[in-house]
This record gives sequence, structure tokens and C-alpha cells, in this order.
Amino acid sequence: MRAVTPRTRPRSAGTLPPPETTPKGADVTREKLLQATHELLFERSGEEPSVADICERADVRVAMVSYCFGGKAQLLEALVDRAMSQMMSEQQQLIDLGLPPEEALARQVRASVYAFVRFPYMSELSERLVVGERAGTRLAETFVTPTVAWYRELIDAGVEQGVFRPVDPMFLLFSIVGMCEFLFSAKSWVQDSGAALDDALVERFAAHTVDLLLRGMRPATD
Amino acid sequence: MRAVTPRTRPRSAGTLPPPETTPKGADVTREKLLQATHELLFERSGEEPSVADICERADVRVAMVSYCFGGKAQLLEALVDRAMSQMMSEQQQLIDLGLPPEEALARQVRASVYAFVRFPYMSELSERLVVGERAGTRLAETFVTPTVAWYRELIDAGVEQGVFRPVDPMFLLFSIVGMCEFLFSAKSWVQDSGAALDDALVERFAAHTVDLLLRGMRPATD
Repeated sequence: MRAVTPRTRPRSAGTLPPPETTPKGADVTREKLLQATHELLFERSGEEPSVADICERADVRVAMVSYCFGGKAQLLEALVDRAMSQMMSEQQQLIDLGLPPEEALARQVRASVYAFVRFPYMSELSERLVVGERAGTRLAETFVTPTVAWYRELIDAGVEQGVFRPVDPMFLLFSIVGMCEFLFSAKSWVQDSGAALDDALVERFAAHTVDLLLRGMRPATD
Repeated sequence: MRAVTPRTRPRSAGTLPPPETTPKGADVTREKLLQATHELLFERSGEEPSVADICERADVRVAMVSYCFGGKAQLLEALVDRAMSQMMSEQQQLIDLGLPPEEALARQVRASVYAFVRFPYMSELSERLVVGERAGTRLAETFVTPTVAWYRELIDAGVEQGVFRPVDPMFLLFSIVGMCEFLFSAKSWVQDSGAALDDALVERFAAHTVDLLLRGMRPATD
């Protein structure tokens, strides 16, 4: 795989969003394993690390993956869940702020672009996990269904205030995730064009996407 | 992998777009191999068929893959090239028709959605091939660079006629391909929501995407 220009990404994987309650006892080990897996996936452009690699990075015994999660697949699922619940809680905060619908949509689109910077391995990983029926249903329950509901509420509010036209909330979700994701799946296209997928380009793309979406959502004038 | 609802796709893989000149001699075998590979990738949701499977379907001797292409990787590359040149020639036709920029963009977006119906395996396949440096450069030369140039010309014409605002043509390409592709990579989301990814849904999504894009491209009013 092509090396990504170093400026593309934050210097390090950073720390995972914390769990809802402060970990104690076995949960401390659980956290170490999640953080180690996040770092390795980040550093290796999504290539799945072995249990041995994960445990070495986490500095815990190899048996701990089974003990804490039941197995590697469940550890990976828990990592997807962690990232997803972080995104869900940020969406909820946008609602709690009581922002005007256009501002809430702009922030949501921007957050979607940057989610791919923070968790560059996430789409590929959740796609692999969706192959298992149970994980697919989990993703639907933890992310797709509540996010479609969030968009529906936002669109309804915007339509009522005369700032949005009515669109299908599931299609809007697809459009936004698809647009935001593509910059990262097309990184070789960016590089072939002679540009660098650096912070400035990501920011320009985020602004482009917000602009296209918000204008695209304006009420019908014809 | 989840079974795709039968109505999702055309009943059969259909025939590949023909080469520029009528095949003769060894080129007939070449065509049979390309068509067989297309059919198998289509039928198996993108899973790569073996050389033996391809030759059995094409009804040619196994040595023919090496003889005609040099190897399976080159056969797959030639298939990507064929689909890409078909798309490029359709783009060219849109220019030749001399349509108003908005109509040309609408047709291009619609064609992009339906390209994923005709070649459901294409993104994954070209992504795998891009891992090889040479194939990445080929994709840039045969698709990315000319398509960005096409969008630049279209945007310039639209800006001049006062129907588009200026946007980065590479970003517009990313937005369009990303939006069009996502419906198909998120097919499990569609199914989890209880909907079927059938012809009617693809058509509704195409209309949604054209609408969002064309409105998003309107000249700035603020």
C-alpha cells in the first residue's frame, strides 16, 4: 500500500474517547487493550494486528484478550462501539446546544470529515465486522438507526423554519458519509494529482463539503 | 457476506462494452476472457475468481490467460480499463451533445450512480489494483486526470453562463463518486432499515443525488 504523506494524519493515534465510567479492576486491562488496538490499526493503515502484537503494545498477558473480551473479534467490535458511541454522543451534544438547523448540519458534516482523520481504519473495520450478521445488526442499532432519526429531526426542524427542503434522512446520511469518506479512500488520487493530503487539504475539503451540502439543502425555489 | 436482495441488480451481468475495433484472431479469446471475468465478478459480488474458473466460463484453455494478458493481474487491469474507457467515452459524448452545463452535470451524476449497478465490483477491484504503483498511475491517467479536466471544463462553462458557482473540480469529482458509491457500500444499512435496494430505490437515490448536487452548485446568493 502506498505510504500516506506524513502530514496527512495527526502525529499519533491519540487517546481513545474514554468509557462512560472510570475503569477499575479488569476494566483497566480492557481499556489498555482497546487503546493498543486503536494505536496499531492507526499506525498500520488499518491492517489488523495480531493478538500478540496487541498484548505487547498494551503490556498485558496474551490470555487477557480472551479473558476481557472473549476473543479478538469481540475486541474489535468493542473498539467500533467505542468510536461509534463517541460520535453518537457528539451528535446528541449538537442537539442539546439547540443550534439553528443549518449550523447543526454544518457541524455534523465537519465532524464526519474529521471522524475519518481520527479513526482512519473505521470504515474498513466495521465493513469486515458486518460480514458477521450480529455485528451488522449492532452497527444498525448503535449507529445507523439513531443517526437516521437524528437527521430526520434536524430536517424536520429546518423545513419548519423554512431553511431546508424536505429530503429522505437515510439518503442524506448516505450522501454525507459517502462524500466525507471518499477523500480518504481516494488518497492515491490526491497524490497522483500532485497534491498532498495534508491538514490544509482536509480543511478545504471539509469547507467544500459543508458548502455543497448546505446549499443543496436550501428550500426549493423552483 | 450478506446476500443481496435479488432485485438489487440486473438479472445478469450483461455484456461488456465492446472494444473499439471488432476483435479478430487472438483478440476473440481476449474478449471471451474479459467477459467471463466480468460475469464471475458480478455474480460473486466482487470475489476474485480463479484462472481456472475464468477459463472454464470462457471455454478456453487455461494457458490463454498468460498468452493473452501475461497473467491474471493484467487481465483484471484490462477489465478495469475497459469499464473506464466506456465511462470516459460516455463523458465525451455528453460534451459532444453540447448540452447546457446543468443538464450535462445531471446526466453525469446519474451515469455515475448507474456505473455502480453495471460494475458493482469496480471500486473494490481498482482499489486492490492500485496497491501496485503502476496500476495506480494507469487509473490516474485513464480516469482521474481526464475526469477532473472534464469537470473543470463543465464548471467553467457553468460559471460563465451564471448557472454554477466555482468549485474545485477534483473535490467535485470526489463528492460525486463518494455519494454515488456509498449507496452500494452501505447496502446492509439499507436492508437493516427494512428497505430493499431495488431498482426503485436506486432511481430515487439517483434523483436525490442529482438534486442535492445541482442545488449545491448554484451560484452564490450570499
